[in-house]
Amino acid sequence: MRRKAKCRRRLGVAGHVTRNYDVYSFSCTSCLRMAYDVVNVNMSEKPDWLFDKNPNGKVPVLEVDGGDTLHDSFVIAEYLDEKYSYRPLHSRDPWKKAKDKLLIQLFNKVINALYKLFLDPNNLDKQSVDNIIGELIVFEEELDARGKPFFGGERPGMVDYMMWPWCERSDLLRIMGGDRWCLSKQKFQKLMEWRNAMKEDDAVKESYLEPNLHAKYFKSRLGGYPDYDILV
Amino acid sequence: MRRKAKCRRRLGVAGHVTRNYDVYSFSCTSCLRMAYDVVNVNMSEKPDWLFDKNPNGKVPVLEVDGGDTLHDSFVIAEYLDEKYSYRPLHSRDPWKKAKDKLLIQLFNKVINALYKLFLDPNNLDKQSVDNIIGELIVFEEELDARGKPFFGGERPGMVDYMMWPWCERSDLLRIMGGDRWCLSKQKFQKLMEWRNAMKEDDAVKESYLEPNLHAKYFKSRLGGYPDYDILV
Repeated sequence: MRRKAKCRRRLGVAGHVTRNYDVYSFSCTSCLRMAYDVVNVNMSEKPDWLFDKNPNGKVPVLEVDGGDTLHDSFVIAEYLDEKYSYRPLHSRDPWKKAKDKLLIQLFNKVINALYKLFLDPNNLDKQSVDNIIGELIVFEEELDARGKPFFGGERPGMVDYMMWPWCERSDLLRIMGGDRWCLSKQKFQKLMEWRNAMKEDDAVKESYLEPNLHAKYFKSRLGGYPDYDILV
Repeated sequence: MRRKAKCRRRLGVAGHVTRNYDVYSFSCTSCLRMAYDVVNVNMSEKPDWLFDKNPNGKVPVLEVDGGDTLHDSFVIAEYLDEKYSYRPLHSRDPWKKAKDKLLIQLFNKVINALYKLFLDPNNLDKQSVDNIIGELIVFEEELDARGKPFFGGERPGMVDYMMWPWCERSDLLRIMGGDRWCLSKQKFQKLMEWRNAMKEDDAVKESYLEPNLHAKYFKSRLGGYPDYDILV
């Protein structure tokens, strides 16, 4: 199934982004005030054209005028940041930028663990949630050490936007597994404050969905009929 | 075992790089004309201090004056390129740079396949070599399409230096598996020319080792006593 999403934002340079619930680059594109069309892809029945645009058959893919493409969330996000940013998301300091890349790599562990849980809630046991919490403590401590509301400082930066889509979905754990999977407010005070601050960011607001909508989507996906209409 | 390597190059900013035969960043540091000490690490018996410098316990690690560290070959290479480069290795064009990052990601598949073969030559069957050849064809075609001697153009760039250490070792396949594992000169004409041109690059020359030395090292490693003296 291929279809255009309802949303089209016209703000600058044109581009197409394919996705299936992969929204890393969306916060960036929103933040960078770009124009783009969204083409959702049914990843349960991948269309042939997806492999033309990305030989790995994965999303997201960014297609620009002329038909050339990029894939990989982080490669796309860094490209957009370098090419179009009116407010750079990466630090200008190469050391800080490198440290942020390592944080983003580390957060991929959280993403992989979360994704497995979302796609198969039977895996939602104490051990797997404890593993996620173990990884998140590094981020709590790092945010505390940086002493600013965001990893990027006074405003969200690359780390914040790369983390956000998954933090927006973190309430799914509670919805799917009950209150026992809530993060401790005492243990994760900084991340809780960060999350509230992120919700007030304009780029986040633009794509924000309530946790119950995310849960509805994942339930429809688990049922074999992913309902993308929920997401657009 | 921890020891300083014999080589110390004094050319600019000081740094320490830990390694165990992981030399991505070395071509870069050589190319960028930096000063660094090399600390080899026995990865079969990882020392505790390695985990202080990289929680993943992997190499390479870059340690700068003051003791702060970075890990991950590509993160280190990009940091060095941004911070110290007298000749930038990445393209200044964000689109080309992003495309190059995807090429480097793709080459990681070749690296993983090669590394498995080097560490367990029993895996050296036709299928696994065919898989590597299948991936390499993309690089042959890309180099042909770019129409220059190097992926970076008239001089080696980030893609060239990230690929090189493994191409330098590609003769190991022939040494370990016989002539039947030679790459076809007709099929890989561009990559063969590229390889010869890379051998003439000053940064490559500085760390170049003959294939028989690489083979000797891997044999010592397979025997359980990796002989780092071969490498320095």
